Amino acid sequence: MRIGELSKRTGVPVPTIKYYLREGLLPAGELTSHNQAQYTEEHLRRLRLIRAMTEAGKLSVAAAREVLQAVDAPETTLHEALGTAQRAVTPQVAPAATAHWVQAERQVEELVARRGWQVMPDSPARPALVQLLVTYRELGQEDLLVLLEDYADAAGRLATAELAAVARREGVEGKVESAVVGTVLGDAIIAALRRLAQEDASHRIFEGG
Amino acid sequence: MRIGELSKRTGVPVPTIKYYLREGLLPAGELTSHNQAQYTEEHLRRLRLIRAMTEAGKLSVAAAREVLQAVDAPETTLHEALGTAQRAVTPQVAPAATAHWVQAERQVEELVARRGWQVMPDSPARPALVQLLVTYRELGQEDLLVLLEDYADAAGRLATAELAAVARREGVEGKVESAVVGTVLGDAIIAALRRLAQEDASHRIFEGG
Repeated sequence: MRIGELSKRTGVPVPTIKYYLREGLLPAGELTSHNQAQYTEEHLRRLRLIRAMTEAGKLSVAAAREVLQAVDAPETTLHEALGTAQRAVTPQVAPAATAHWVQAERQVEELVARRGWQVMPDSPARPALVQLLVTYRELGQEDLLVLLEDYADAAGRLATAELAAVARREGVEGKVESAVVGTVLGDAIIAALRRLAQEDASHRIFEGG
Repeated sequence: MRIGELSKRTGVPVPTIKYYLREGLLPAGELTSHNQAQYTEEHLRRLRLIRAMTEAGKLSVAAAREVLQAVDAPETTLHEALGTAQRAVTPQVAPAATAHWVQAERQVEELVARRGWQVMPDSPARPALVQLLVTYRELGQEDLLVLLEDYADAAGRLATAELAAVARREGVEGKVESAVVGTVLGDAIIAALRRLAQEDASHRIFEGG
C-alpha cells in the first residue's frame, strides 16, 4: 500500500509517518519509483505499536525507539522485551536520603519478599512505590496504608490475568503491543472503575443506600 | 501559632500560605496585633487538606476551593462532599457522536447495572471509562477487554475497603482529606504494584520461573 493508505488505515497523518521514517522508528518502504514507496501489513502493525506507545503510553519518540530496538533485537527474550516496554512507561523516581525513605524502602522489600514476587533489584516500580508510601506518611495519611495488602492482592490477581491475555497474542511485536497498551490504559481503566465503585460504596456506607 | 510555625509544621512556604489566605482557601487567623495573626490546629488541618489536593491531587486552586466549599456547606452530606472531591480529581471527558462511543457507552451501562452499582447518570467516571473502551477498540486491542470483569471485581473490592478506611477518619474534613489522598495516590500505588506483579507474572509465564 502507499503512504496515503497507511495514514488512512491508522489515522496517523502522513507528515507524522514521514517523521517516524526519518527517525528510524518505522523501516523504509520498498521504492517502486523515484518518489513512491510501498508499505506492507508489517508497516501497518509497527505503526499501530508506535501509536500505542506515543499516544496511549505518552512515550517520547526516543523512548518508543528504545522499546522497538528491544523488540527487534534477535537475542532479546520476550520477558526482556516486556521489561523494556514496562520500564519505558514507568515514572523514574530518584531515591531520597531520608529516614522516611529508608523505612518505606524496607516496607516495599518486605512486601515483595512476602509475596515471593520475582522482581529485579533495579525495577523502576520499586522507587515509584517507595515514594508514594513516603508521600502518604508526609501527608499524615499512613493509616490508609492498611489498604496496601488489599492493593497488592488485586495487583497480583490482575497481573496474572493480564499476562495470560498478552501470552494469547501472536508474535513478539503483538505481545509487546498489548503489554504497552494494557499497562498504560489498564491504569486508567482501573482508576475509572474504582471511582464508580467508590461512589457506590459511599452511597451504601454513608447514605445507608 | 504564628504563620512561621504553620509553615514549618506543614512544609508549605509562607508566601504560599499567604496566597491561600488571599484566595480564601484558608480562613484568616485571629489578629493579635496590627501585623500579627494567630493560627489554630484547625488551620493546620485545613492547610494539610489544601496541600493534599493541590500536590497529590494536582488540583488547581479553583478546584480545591470548590471542594472546600462543599466540605464547609452546612447542608452538604458526607456522600455529597465525597462526590464533589471525586469529581474534582476525575478527568472531564466530552462524549463523541460515533458508533464506537454509543456501543462502549452501552457496555458501561450494562456493567454498572449488572453489578448493581448506585452511580449517578452524570458521574464523570462514566465518560472517562467509555473513552478508554473506545481507545482499546481503535488500537485494535479489544481482545484485552476480557479483563474488564477482573478489573471491575478488583475495583469493587478495593472501593469497599477504601470507604471503610475513610469512615474510620474523624470529622467531615478528615474524611474528605483521606478520600482525596486515597483516590489520587491510590491510583499510583495500584499502578506501581501492578508493574511489580506483572514483572513477576512475565517471569513465571515466559521464563518458566
